Amino acid sequence: MTDVLDLAKRLIAAPSVTPATGAVFDALEAMLIPLGFVVHRFSRGEGAAGTDEAPVENLFAIREGGGRHLAFAGHLDVVPPGEGWASGAFEPEIRGDLLYGRGAVDMKGAIACMVAAVADIPADAGTISFIITGDEEGPALHGTRALIDFMEEAGHQPDLCLVGEPTSVNRLGDMMKIGRRGSVNMWLSAKGTQGHVAYPHLADNPIPRLVAAMADLEALRLDEGTDWFQPSNLEITDIEVGNPAHNVIPGEARARLSIRFNDLHSGASLSEKVTAICAKHQVDVNPVISGEPFLTPPGEFSAMVSAAVEAETGIAPEASTTGGTSDARFLRAVCPVIEFGLVNATMHKRDEAVAVADLAVLARVYARIARAALHN
Amino acid sequence: MTDVLDLAKRLIAAPSVTPATGAVFDALEAMLIPLGFVVHRFSRGEGAAGTDEAPVENLFAIREGGGRHLAFAGHLDVVPPGEGWASGAFEPEIRGDLLYGRGAVDMKGAIACMVAAVADIPADAGTISFIITGDEEGPALHGTRALIDFMEEAGHQPDLCLVGEPTSVNRLGDMMKIGRRGSVNMWLSAKGTQGHVAYPHLADNPIPRLVAAMADLEALRLDEGTDWFQPSNLEITDIEVGNPAHNVIPGEARARLSIRFNDLHSGASLSEKVTAICAKHQVDVNPVISGEPFLTPPGEFSAMVSAAVEAETGIAPEASTTGGTSDARFLRAVCPVIEFGLVNATMHKRDEAVAVADLAVLARVYARIARAALHN
Repeated sequence: MTDVLDLAKRLIAAPSVTPATGAVFDALEAMLIPLGFVVHRFSRGEGAAGTDEAPVENLFAIREGGGRHLAFAGHLDVVPPGEGWASGAFEPEIRGDLLYGRGAVDMKGAIACMVAAVADIPADAGTISFIITGDEEGPALHGTRALIDFMEEAGHQPDLCLVGEPTSVNRLGDMMKIGRRGSVNMWLSAKGTQGHVAYPHLADNPIPRLVAAMADLEALRLDEGTDWFQPSNLEITDIEVGNPAHNVIPGEARARLSIRFNDLHSGASLSEKVTAICAKHQVDVNPVISGEPFLTPPGEFSAMVSAAVEAETGIAPEASTTGGTSDARFLRAVCPVIEFGLVNATMHKRDEAVAVADLAVLARVYARIARAALHN
Repeated sequence: MTDVLDLAKRLIAAPSVTPATGAVFDALEAMLIPLGFVVHRFSRGEGAAGTDEAPVENLFAIREGGGRHLAFAGHLDVVPPGEGWASGAFEPEIRGDLLYGRGAVDMKGAIACMVAAVADIPADAGTISFIITGDEEGPALHGTRALIDFMEEAGHQPDLCLVGEPTSVNRLGDMMKIGRRGSVNMWLSAKGTQGHVAYPHLADNPIPRLVAAMADLEALRLDEGTDWFQPSNLEITDIEVGNPAHNVIPGEARARLSIRFNDLHSGASLSEKVTAICAKHQVDVNPVISGEPFLTPPGEFSAMVSAAVEAETGIAPEASTTGGTSDARFLRAVCPVIEFGLVNATMHKRDEAVAVADLAVLARVYARIARAALHN
């Protein structure tokens, strides 16, 4: 089998703090061309004048073998390394059983495993593609969404998509994600008229209205959860009045809330619901939807991933929908999508590292998934 | 009659930003000695080591004529002048019909009127005293309270007390204060455990508890008011979480409230009530009582003041209990107390000013009150 450790090192050695462009994509392209892939690369988000957007690079690679089409998806950008690493964040180094470097688990290591897996699959087994962005850790405005547009225009329609996010928790294989909750933040604002506490009839305190709105929101039970999702959850995360004077009634009060929600809701339906509650109290709401929920209901695809994981690791992965968001929120519009990858304990942290042994195991898991997906 | 304008100018010319000592008391003493008063002056609040307390001067002057005892009470300290005066804040200047200077209405002007009034009253008409502090605009810890202690030790017990705060609103004579509401501020604090919004079971958001406590407090109707007082009023004046991160559940939330209350309550009873409500939601309360309410029920004294005002101004003053607090909150423990003084429109403001004509009128009102109080 291909030397997956070497592939991982080559990707880590190309610095690619989000948004990523250039060298790290050159490295991946150089791995895919010899395997028979046609590689398309394009930049987006050069930015309108006056914006602070930096260009984002995206790569779509395809090896058309007829029959079914499996897409591997992921990102080559990484979060900033921060301070205090024992070795260089972009100088891959093995110490003990671990390979250290920014992106080792999130998710250059997984992309190396995808390449190694594909090297093992005959070109005529079916169609395999790579959907790889340099803008997943950032605003994600010009990344996977642009790749989906590109694929649609080019007429490429995967049947299944495997995202290589680090979903394993304690050991490789213990968790896959068959969905993700949606996420929306909302900014609440109540306006009134400032005045002196001794003359409340001359003032209009906005705090009682904001408190009443927040009390109504806290009383809300969005749902009881579903077979595959936790109950949706609303958290008020901040309240701000900023009035230092003991004897002054303030003229404005603000709050912020965050909802992580399951597939019984959408960002729009929740925005409407919260806005209606707040309107009763003359509180304005400004919602910003970060992502919609998705679910790939347990079935053939999840059974396929689960079997591959169990064959190589000895454990059946839990099918989870917990945690934050990922680019799977966009890809779910294209085809069924499941996420499975390395152990996430060190992701986004100093001294991010992957067990060297896990790289070979994950490459074999991905190869099993590819064979199963294409033969079906 | 004594030149009350000259007396007012002499008091204004002695700078006396709170806490006041020295020259301004020398000026008042020099006015009272020729009128036959025995003047006692003493300083308090030199401060324990490590505190930022400055010394406060107090003056008690008495002319004992036997019979009944009327006390005039007030303060010689003033709030800081601030910027932008048209003339010097401590350089009394007449422009048009007005005398300008810090303290013109609050309340050196009124003290000048008291002196001028007393000059008109024969020494054998009865006992008259002056209870004058240099610490009313500040913390009021070492002012009128210390004067009350001094009087008690010396065996001086007034029958009635007239405080010269600027109670008139639109024109001299339109309002007197027969009582004041009490005031208490409370600091609310709810503690929890910080965490990530995607994993609320690992965090403990204190905001819902604080919101529930505030909602209960907003629902509270303390009373419906009394014959002489407005309903007691609770205002939440600030809420503070200070959490900039959208995806973080905060670990602490704080709020502040202010209650202005009538004589159906005390600072302690309200502190107990709010503490009990907040305890149900695990919210801590730290109350600071600024003043208790008082009422001099309408009767002989208020009729006396009202008649004097009407005789000199042509209008009967409204008997009010509105507004902030004053040192009357302490003096009410000694004897019945009523407040009446100049028009308060410019108090605490830039270009504080008194109508020159009002000084002579107020001096005559105070003289009428003195005659009535002593003859009864």
